Amino acid sequence: MTQLRMGMVGGGPGAFIGDVHRRAACLDGDVELVAGVFSTSAATSRRMGRELGLSRARTYGSYLDMVERERALPADQRIDFVSVVTPNHLHFPVAKAFLEAGFHVVCDKPMTLTVTEARRLKQIVRRSRRVFALTHNYTGYPMVKLARDLVRAGDLGALRKVVVQYPQGWLSTRLERTGHKQAMWRTDPARGGAAGCIGDIGSHAENLAEYITGLRMLELCADLTTFARGRRVADDGSVLVRFQQGVRGVLLASQISVGEENGLAIWVYGDRKGLEWHQEAPNVLRVTSQDGPFEVWSRGNRYVAARSPAAARASRLPAGHPEAFLEAFANVYRNVTDVIRARHTRTRPDPLAADFPDVDDGLRGMLFIDAVVKSAASRQKWIKVPAR
Amino acid sequence: MTQLRMGMVGGGPGAFIGDVHRRAACLDGDVELVAGVFSTSAATSRRMGRELGLSRARTYGSYLDMVERERALPADQRIDFVSVVTPNHLHFPVAKAFLEAGFHVVCDKPMTLTVTEARRLKQIVRRSRRVFALTHNYTGYPMVKLARDLVRAGDLGALRKVVVQYPQGWLSTRLERTGHKQAMWRTDPARGGAAGCIGDIGSHAENLAEYITGLRMLELCADLTTFARGRRVADDGSVLVRFQQGVRGVLLASQISVGEENGLAIWVYGDRKGLEWHQEAPNVLRVTSQDGPFEVWSRGNRYVAARSPAAARASRLPAGHPEAFLEAFANVYRNVTDVIRARHTRTRPDPLAADFPDVDDGLRGMLFIDAVVKSAASRQKWIKVPAR
Amino acid sequence: MTQLRMGMVGGGPGAFIGDVHRRAACLDGDVELVAGVFSTSAATSRRMGRELGLSRARTYGSYLDMVERERALPADQRIDFVSVVTPNHLHFPVAKAFLEAGFHVVCDKPMTLTVTEARRLKQIVRRSRRVFALTHNYTGYPMVKLARDLVRAGDLGALRKVVVQYPQGWLSTRLERTGHKQAMWRTDPARGGAAGCIGDIGSHAENLAEYITGLRMLELCADLTTFARGRRVADDGSVLVRFQQGVRGVLLASQISVGEENGLAIWVYGDRKGLEWHQEAPNVLRVTSQDGPFEVWSRGNRYVAARSPAAARASRLPAGHPEAFLEAFANVYRNVTDVIRARHTRTRPDPLAADFPDVDDGLRGMLFIDAVVKSAASRQKWIKVPAR
Amino acid sequence: MTQLRMGMVGGGPGAFIGDVHRRAACLDGDVELVAGVFSTSAATSRRMGRELGLSRARTYGSYLDMVERERALPADQRIDFVSVVTPNHLHFPVAKAFLEAGFHVVCDKPMTLTVTEARRLKQIVRRSRRVFALTHNYTGYPMVKLARDLVRAGDLGALRKVVVQYPQGWLSTRLERTGHKQAMWRTDPARGGAAGCIGDIGSHAENLAEYITGLRMLELCADLTTFARGRRVADDGSVLVRFQQGVRGVLLASQISVGEENGLAIWVYGDRKGLEWHQEAPNVLRVTSQDGPFEVWSRGNRYVAARSPAAARASRLPAGHPEAFLEAFANVYRNVTDVIRARHTRTRPDPLAADFPDVDDGLRGMLFIDAVVKSAASRQKWIKVPAR
Repeated sequence: MTQLRMGMVGGGPGAFIGDVHRRAACLDGDVELVAGVFSTSAATSRRMGRELGLSRARTYGSYLDMVERERALPADQRIDFVSVVTPNHLHFPVAKAFLEAGFHVVCDKPMTLTVTEARRLKQIVRRSRRVFALTHNYTGYPMVKLARDLVRAGDLGALRKVVVQYPQGWLSTRLERTGHKQAMWRTDPARGGAAGCIGDIGSHAENLAEYITGLRMLELCADLTTFARGRRVADDGSVLVRFQQGVRGVLLASQISVGEENGLAIWVYGDRKGLEWHQEAPNVLRVTSQDGPFEVWSRGNRYVAARSPAAARASRLPAGHPEAFLEAFANVYRNVTDVIRARHTRTRPDPLAADFPDVDDGLRGMLFIDAVVKSAASRQKWIKVPAR
Repeated sequence: MTQLRMGMVGGGPGAFIGDVHRRAACLDGDVELVAGVFSTSAATSRRMGRELGLSRARTYGSYLDMVERERALPADQRIDFVSVVTPNHLHFPVAKAFLEAGFHVVCDKPMTLTVTEARRLKQIVRRSRRVFALTHNYTGYPMVKLARDLVRAGDLGALRKVVVQYPQGWLSTRLERTGHKQAMWRTDPARGGAAGCIGDIGSHAENLAEYITGLRMLELCADLTTFARGRRVADDGSVLVRFQQGVRGVLLASQISVGEENGLAIWVYGDRKGLEWHQEAPNVLRVTSQDGPFEVWSRGNRYVAARSPAAARASRLPAGHPEAFLEAFANVYRNVTDVIRARHTRTRPDPLAADFPDVDDGLRGMLFIDAVVKSAASRQKWIKVPAR
Repeated sequence: MTQLRMGMVGGGPGAFIGDVHRRAACLDGDVELVAGVFSTSAATSRRMGRELGLSRARTYGSYLDMVERERALPADQRIDFVSVVTPNHLHFPVAKAFLEAGFHVVCDKPMTLTVTEARRLKQIVRRSRRVFALTHNYTGYPMVKLARDLVRAGDLGALRKVVVQYPQGWLSTRLERTGHKQAMWRTDPARGGAAGCIGDIGSHAENLAEYITGLRMLELCADLTTFARGRRVADDGSVLVRFQQGVRGVLLASQISVGEENGLAIWVYGDRKGLEWHQEAPNVLRVTSQDGPFEVWSRGNRYVAARSPAAARASRLPAGHPEAFLEAFANVYRNVTDVIRARHTRTRPDPLAADFPDVDDGLRGMLFIDAVVKSAASRQKWIKVPAR
Repeated sequence: MTQLRMGMVGGGPGAFIGDVHRRAACLDGDVELVAGVFSTSAATSRRMGRELGLSRARTYGSYLDMVERERALPADQRIDFVSVVTPNHLHFPVAKAFLEAGFHVVCDKPMTLTVTEARRLKQIVRRSRRVFALTHNYTGYPMVKLARDLVRAGDLGALRKVVVQYPQGWLSTRLERTGHKQAMWRTDPARGGAAGCIGDIGSHAENLAEYITGLRMLELCADLTTFARGRRVADDGSVLVRFQQGVRGVLLASQISVGEENGLAIWVYGDRKGLEWHQEAPNVLRVTSQDGPFEVWSRGNRYVAARSPAAARASRLPAGHPEAFLEAFANVYRNVTDVIRARHTRTRPDPLAADFPDVDDGLRGMLFIDAVVKSAASRQKWIKVPAR
C-alpha cells in the first residue's frame, strides 16, 4: 500500500492530542509524518521536529510558511494531507489555508470557534474538492459501528430515547492555574471557545448520539454551570434534547465529576430493544430486550462481523485481545487515508471507508454548541438547533 | 421485643407491593398482621384474609368499617398501625381516616394524588400526633445510609452535581391492555396520578437524591413524553434540577427503557470526592477522587459501621452474604415500628430509628411531581418547587 | 397455609447462622419457632428463648430434655421439625435423637464430623422415615436452579469442565484468638472437624458443583495448607477433581484470601455452551457460547420461568428487585416444610418441593471431605471418592 | 531517537501473531521492518514482503539465507535484531542461527520445543553476548507492572496464595480440521509441542505468576485432558503449584472453556492485602484488604506513577483513555529496543528498560511445561520443577 505523507500543525511538546494523532495516523504503517509546524515558537517547533525525526527543511516556523513551501515541492514529495491539532481557535484559519492550497485536511474537534466559521469552512471544503475529516475519534470504535448498524437494520425498532453522558473529573480544581497547558487553553474562551466542557467533550457526545441513531437534534434546553471559582468557561452542562422522529434525549457533559476519568457512555432505547456502550470498556456492546436475557456482543467475533462489516473492518485483533482508544482513533485515519489514496489512484475507495466525520458533522457540532450556549442564557425553554 | 399488631388496607391477590409490605414488616419477627381489608370486593378481601391466616372477624369489607371496628377493640387487641398499600388515589382518604381515629400509619408512595391533599395530610398528621411513614424503601438500603453519612461528614467536600436515574422497561408495550393489574392502575390518571412514571418512580429518585444530599430542589425544567401510543400518562421524563446551595442535577425516570429492570442509580459529586450507587447492586458504594484509586465500600464490614452506625443498624448479615430489596424495605418498617414501640412504652427510641421518610418527604414528593407536570406544559424554562 | 411449629438446637446469642435459620424458616410466614435449646449453658439458653419470645416452658436446658418433653406434648402442640444449628460435632447426636423420637430434622452442614457418623445417620434417617434436610443454602438461589435446569436440558451439550471456587478472607489473621466465637469452633478440630476450610466452605462448593452438573466426584487430588501460624486446621485448599462422565474439575476453598468476602462462584463448560454464576451477584447467570453474544439471564423474568419452573418457584420479587442470601436460604426451608406439610396432610407435595439437599448429599459431602484430607496426607496422586 | 532495523522470520499471510509483532515493534515509530522471510514457501514469502513494502532484495527464501546475506550487509544497513514468530518448533534453530551470527533476537513463546533445546539456547545466548527477549507480552501491561511493584514493596505482606487462570474457548471444536492454520500447528505435537494448551497459554500464566510474585515454582501436580475427540494434544490443564517461600498456587489453562475469549487473570493474596487483574479489563488493578474498602487502581494516574515508575513508563495515554493488548506488546519491544540501542551507543539504558522476559524466563517456561507433562503421566503426586 502506498504510504501517504502527512503534515501536522500543532502537537508540540507535551500536547497529548498531537501525539495521539501521530500514533493513530501511523498505526497501520501506511502514513509517514514528513513535515510540520509544532508550536507558535519557531525554536520549540524545530526542537519537536528534530525529536520526531523530521528533516530541518520541513519543520516550519508558521503554518503559512508551511503551506507556501509544501505547495512548492514536487508532487511526489509534498505532503498528501495535513492534520490540524492546534487549540480550537486556530482550526479555522489553518484548515482554510491548507484547503485553499489544495491539501486534504484532518482537523481536531470542535471544528471551529464559531458557527460562522463553520459555515464558511463548509463552503471552503466544497469549493476545494478536498477531503476534510474531523477526528470525532469515538465513532472509530468497532462496537460503536456495530451499534449504528444494529439501529440502521431495525433491531431496536423505532427509536425513542437516547441518554449520552461524558463525565470527567480532571478540571475539578483550577488546574489551569498550575501551568497545565491543556487546562489553560481549554478554559480560555478565546482559544477553547465559550462553551467550555460542551465544546470540548459535549460535542463528542452529540456526535456519538447522532452517529449511532442517524438522527439530528431539533431543539434543546441546557443548563450550564461554572463550578470552579474564577474559571471563565462552563465546566458542567446538562441538556434536554429533542431529536428528529420524536426521539427524546439527555446529554450530560462535565469536567468536575470528580474521580471520573473519561466516561463517555450512551444508551439508546427503541420500542423493541435497547443498547448500551461505555468508552472505558469499549470492546463490548450490551443489547437488551424485555423478552430474553440481555446480550453482550464482543468485538472480534464472527457474529459481529456478520451484522457489521464496518465493525469487522475496524478491528485488528481477535476477540479477547482488547483494542482501545488508539485503534479507534486510527480507524478514523485509516478511512480518511483510504479515501485520499483512492483519489490519488482515481479508483473507488472501499465503500466502508467513507465512514468518518466530515465538515457537515463539524458544522452540526458547532450548531449544537451554539444552541447550548444560547439556551443556557435564555429564559425560553426550547432553543432550535438549525439544520445547517 | 413486644410484637406490634399491624393492619393493612390494599394488597389483595396479585398485588406485588402488598406482599412486599407484609414480608418487610414481619421480617424481624416483631410485627404480626392481624387485620385488613384487601380489596374493594368484600369476597376477594375475605379470601385474601383467609389465605393470610387472619381471623374472619378482622377481615373487613371496607376501610371505614375497619377503622370503626378496630377502634372499638380493647387496646391490647386492636391494631397498632395500618399500612396503606392501595392505588395512589386512596392513600389520602384511607390515611386520613386512620390517623383521625388515632392509628399510626405507614403509607406507600407517592403520598397522595395532589399537592392539596398532601398539604392537608400534613396538617392531619400534625394534629393527630401519630406516627406517619412513607415507604420510600430505597432509602432503607445500608449503603444509601452510608452515602448520606459520608456526605454529611464532609467527605465529598462542597456538593456540586447530582445525577439520579430510574430506568425501567416494563411499560415499553401497552401492558395495561393485557389485563395486567398494576400496569392498569398505574397508567390510569385517576388512580395513579397524572404524572405517570414521574409519580411512580421519579418520586423515588427525587427522595433518594434529597436523602443523600440533604438538599431541597428549588427549581426544575422537565420534558415528559408518552411513547406508547394511546397511553394516558407520561412513560418517560427527564428533568434538569437546581438544588439548594448551587448544586445542579439531572433526574431521569423512564418506564420505556426497554430491557432495563429496576435501574435506580445515583451519582453525587462534591469538590473533593464523588460517590455512585446502584439499586441492582445494592451492597456496594463506589467512592471516587482525583488523587487515589477509587474505592468500593461493601456492606457489613467494620469500616462501614465506623463511618455509618445507621448503615450498620440496617444490616442483618455479614459482608459477602448479600442483602437486598426486602431487607431495605424492612429497614423502613423497623425504624417506624421502633418509634411506635417507644411511644407505647413512653421511652426514647434509638436516635437512629427516626430515620424514615415522613409526611414532609411525602409533601416534597408531591411538590416535585406537581412542578414537573407544570414544567412539562410550560414554555418557561424554570419552574419553582415550593418549599412546602 | 397451616403454620408448622419449629424447634431449634443451637443458635444462641451472637451465632450468625442460628439467626439466619430462624429468619429463613419464617420468611414466608408459615413457620413459627416454638421451642428450643440455644446454648450448652441453661441460663444462656433461657435468656435467648426469652429474647425470641418463646415460652419459658419450651426453652430447654439440653437437647435430650427437649426431645423428651416435646415428644410428650400433644400432637397439635409439639414441634413439627427441629433445626440443628450447633457446631459440627453435635450435628450427629442431636439429629439422631430427634429422628429416633420421630421428628423431622433440618441440619446445618457439614452433616457430621466423620464419614462413619454420616453413614450411620443415613441408616437412621431411612429407618425413621422422617424428612431430613441439609442446609446447603446456596442451591436455594433461583439462578442456581436455572443453571441446573439448563444443564439437564442439554443446553450446554456434553459437560467437560467445572471450576468452583469459594474464597474468603476472614480467617487471614488468627481471629480465633480474639474471642471470636465462630472462628473459635471452626478452627477447633474437635468441634469443626479436621478439614477446616474444606469442611466449612469446601463442602458448599462440592455440593454446588454436584447440584448443577448432576455428577458425582470419582477421585480427587488435594493440597491443604495452614497459613496462619499456630492454627490447627487447614485454612486453604485446592483440589483437582475427576467427575463422572470424564468431566474434569477444580475446587478451591480458602479462608485466607485476604479481602474476599464470600466469593463462592462456579463455571461449567460443555461442548456447546458454558455458564458462570457468582454468589455475591446472585440474581444473574451468564451463559456463553462460541457462536453468539454471551447472555445474562436475570432472575424474575418470564424467559427464566419458561426454562426453569424451579427458579420461578424460588423467586418472590419481580426482576430488578434483587433477592439475595436470605431468600435463597428460605427456599431450602420452604421446600422442606412443603414436604413435611404434605406428610401431615397425606397429600402429594408439589414435585418441585423435593428439591433440597438430603442425607445422601450430606454423606457425599463427608466422603468428599474425607477424601480431601486423605489426599492431602498422601503421596499418591489420585484418591477415590467412594460412591456411598 | 535512532530507528532500529528489524528483521522477521515467520508471520506470513494470515498469521495473527506476526502482524501483532510488526505493529507492536513499530508502535512508537523508532523501529522499521526492513527484511524478512515470511513463509517456508519462497513465493508466499515474497508476496508478503511486497505487501509489507520491503525491498525484494531483502525478502528472503529461507532463514539461513537471510542470516547469510544480512550478515554480509554493511553495518549501517543490516538488521539490528530479528523477531522470530514461527511455529514453536522453529524457534530454536532460527534463534540459534541469528544469535551465532551476531544478531539480537526477539522470540515468541514458548521458547523452544524441549527443555534440552532451551538449555542449549541459554548457553548460546550467553556465549553470543546478544540481547535475547521472549514475548511474554502480558507482562507488558502497566497494571501488571504495578502489581509486581506493590508485591515487591511489601504492600501485600508475606505472600500466601496465587490463582492464575487462562481460559479460552476457541478450540472447543476441532477447528484444526477446518483448515484454520493456527489451530493446525498448535494442535500438532511436532510443531506446537506435546503440551498443547499448557505450552500455548499455560506458559503465559506461569510467566505472569512468577513475574508478579518474583517466586519460582518448586513442584507441581497436573491433570491434562484432551476433550476434543481425535485431537493429539491436551486442550485443558489444571495444575496445583508449590512456589518458593511456602506460597501455594493453582494454574488453569484451557482452550475448551467454551465462550471464553482470552481470559487470562490472576489473584495474589498476601497476609496483608490481595490483588486481582484481568487481561480483558487491563487498565485496572483491584487491591483488597480486610480492613477497608477494596481499591481499584486505574492506569495513567499520578498515584500509579508514584508507586510504579515502570507502570508509568509503560503508559502512553492519560487515564480513561484505555490502552490494551497492542500497547502492552509494544512495551516489551520498547524495553528490548532501548537496551539494544544502548548497546549501539555504548551508553547505559534506562534501568527500567531491562524489564522484559529473557532466556532464563524462557528456560523456566520450558521446565514448567516439561514438569506438567511428566506430572500428567505420573501416579506420583508432586513433580519437581528444576531450578534450571
